[in-house]
Amino acid sequence: MAVALDLLRDLIRCNSVTPADDGAIDILVQFLEPLGFTCTRTPFEGDGSYRVENLFATRGNSGPHLLFAGHTDVVPVGDAGAWTHDPFSADVDNEGIMWGRGAVDMKSGVAAFCAALPAFIESGAADNCTISLLITGDEEADAINGTVKVLKWAAEQGHKFDFGLVGEPSSAEFLGDLVRIGRRGSMSFSVTVGGEQGHVAYPHKANNPIPILAGIATQLSCTALDEGNENFPPSNLELTTVDVGNAATNVIPAKGTLKGNIRFNDIWNAQKLEYWLGEQILKVPAKGCDVELNIKQPVSRSFVSDGSKHVDMLVDSVATVSGVSPERSTGGGTSDARFIADYCPVAEFGLVGKTMHQVDERVSTQMVLELQAVYAHFLDSFAQQG
Amino acid sequence: MAVALDLLRDLIRCNSVTPADDGAIDILVQFLEPLGFTCTRTPFEGDGSYRVENLFATRGNSGPHLLFAGHTDVVPVGDAGAWTHDPFSADVDNEGIMWGRGAVDMKSGVAAFCAALPAFIESGAADNCTISLLITGDEEADAINGTVKVLKWAAEQGHKFDFGLVGEPSSAEFLGDLVRIGRRGSMSFSVTVGGEQGHVAYPHKANNPIPILAGIATQLSCTALDEGNENFPPSNLELTTVDVGNAATNVIPAKGTLKGNIRFNDIWNAQKLEYWLGEQILKVPAKGCDVELNIKQPVSRSFVSDGSKHVDMLVDSVATVSGVSPERSTGGGTSDARFIADYCPVAEFGLVGKTMHQVDERVSTQMVLELQAVYAHFLDSFAQQG
Repeated sequence: MAVALDLLRDLIRCNSVTPADDGAIDILVQFLEPLGFTCTRTPFEGDGSYRVENLFATRGNSGPHLLFAGHTDVVPVGDAGAWTHDPFSADVDNEGIMWGRGAVDMKSGVAAFCAALPAFIESGAADNCTISLLITGDEEADAINGTVKVLKWAAEQGHKFDFGLVGEPSSAEFLGDLVRIGRRGSMSFSVTVGGEQGHVAYPHKANNPIPILAGIATQLSCTALDEGNENFPPSNLELTTVDVGNAATNVIPAKGTLKGNIRFNDIWNAQKLEYWLGEQILKVPAKGCDVELNIKQPVSRSFVSDGSKHVDMLVDSVATVSGVSPERSTGGGTSDARFIADYCPVAEFGLVGKTMHQVDERVSTQMVLELQAVYAHFLDSFAQQG
Repeated sequence: MAVALDLLRDLIRCNSVTPADDGAIDILVQFLEPLGFTCTRTPFEGDGSYRVENLFATRGNSGPHLLFAGHTDVVPVGDAGAWTHDPFSADVDNEGIMWGRGAVDMKSGVAAFCAALPAFIESGAADNCTISLLITGDEEADAINGTVKVLKWAAEQGHKFDFGLVGEPSSAEFLGDLVRIGRRGSMSFSVTVGGEQGHVAYPHKANNPIPILAGIATQLSCTALDEGNENFPPSNLELTTVDVGNAATNVIPAKGTLKGNIRFNDIWNAQKLEYWLGEQILKVPAKGCDVELNIKQPVSRSFVSDGSKHVDMLVDSVATVSGVSPERSTGGGTSDARFIADYCPVAEFGLVGKTMHQVDERVSTQMVLELQAVYAHFLDSFAQQG
């Protein structure tokens, strides 16, 4: 089998459901060290979360510095009995499909990038640049002792990156249709309205918080945050729950809570949003109720790497290899790219993610090799045009 | 001690927390039979509730027919250790206060009415009318096998009442300041809004029910039902709870429920209110959500007995004995008077209810004797002016 598929098979056979590693980092170290990479294991623990194995591998110390980021942890298998193949078997069927948890998200991205390295290094092109890999064992769960802490550690070691490439499955329908050049931010919040409990027959002796809560809910869901911009769709607020929990039909309750989540574009940051929320809440007369806004930490900021020459370079590599000009997207959920955006421009490009997190996660081995070809093309461009 | 206080003491010493009777009905039978009352025990059970002891006692079969209604059951003692006196002791202190559960609500009302009977009967005035007592053992809890079923049974026996007098504690600050001549009705309802669950990052693939729920909550709490009339204050709707129960900050929920209660005057009935609720709900665009209104059964209807000559007679007796002209009120919560209103005009007059349902429930023995005097005056008026 091709190098990429050997590596992918070995990685899938590690039962590395977060936070287990099961030898996955070892496999990468054994592959990268002979290629001249200095491999540093950077485990982190604490801050209310479990210990996580991470790897920072770097080669070169001059020229433009590329950071490839990925993860070797996977989500649980779910209903193991429902899988057609053992989820840690990496079976390849007659149609060239490799089966297993992480086949798409995202052991294949890691394997494809690593497999592109030997030829790149042998050609001598690698000598014009610095290549680092940040591989975490916790992208799928808490993400507290993973990418965030490795990036901080690397910065403390003096590493400065010119571009981040995240190998997450980014394609929508076929390989190459979409490059993610940014992500919306995400902020969760709650609003608690406290009134005064009482009997429904004597409302003048009570103060019902529900009308205020409903007024705030209406205000928040009816007010547009913005109209979007060239990079992003409009920011959006969704109310996720409203709860009072009063079982008595004759009692006016003392308080109620509303929760919501905002996915926001780069017009906003956490501070501006908190101010905006406060403004909307103040528009609803509180009628003697106490109204309290709480922002859930952490808030994920929005970012966009449009305008980066390396994004253009990546888009060109995708177009050249796949034959299709990819859409530059800022849609979808969040990924560790948001942490890398604090250090350098970043984009995500990887496989079609259709079976990720599902039973029978699987990947076309052909597509893994195509992805390797895109990464190889990009590495060459990066080294030459840096 | 006076007859009323002897009776009250004996009744308080019965531990008749609903649905226990503990001999309370026996005490009344032993008192009423020698006075010429035909006493029928009318226990009822079934319909999803416990068995209840009830008493229907009647004397005479001509002239105007008065129904006195009361109950011998009491609410639980609560924190027994917090009572100054044993809650079933009926201790009388140096200041003439009798202590015990039911001292106010409403063993004293029953005792005061019964104690007014001997002199009334001895005077011969009772021969011009028919006097019945409906005493239930379940006014405080389910109220399924109590007053409602005894009234139905009595009607089947051919009893027709001209006026109902309920001995509940009706006075607000001092004996005689208030006669209840009606009550608001009570209707509980729920509104469930069903949308489509989804991820907050992909709102176009979901349909959030919370904005619709909030809109309906606002519509219902901002819209006045009426402005009240000569007998009643404005009807009032209170929202009692809103619940979605979604713990995930990144999930748009599938549905939510809003509950409320309406205390309504005699402008409304259940059918009109359901129509009104439907109208308000329709004013809020459902945006593809399913909206379902449910009315909780049973709905208590509103009633008012203003205009009844017997109400005027009762007010006159109160004013004569207490020296104060009582307010004719339709405020407050519900009582069994709403069931009697289906058969005849009804009013409530009794003690000041301040300590009812509380620890250290107690009554001034002087006030019990004053209440007896009001009932005695009313019995005479009823017999003479019928």
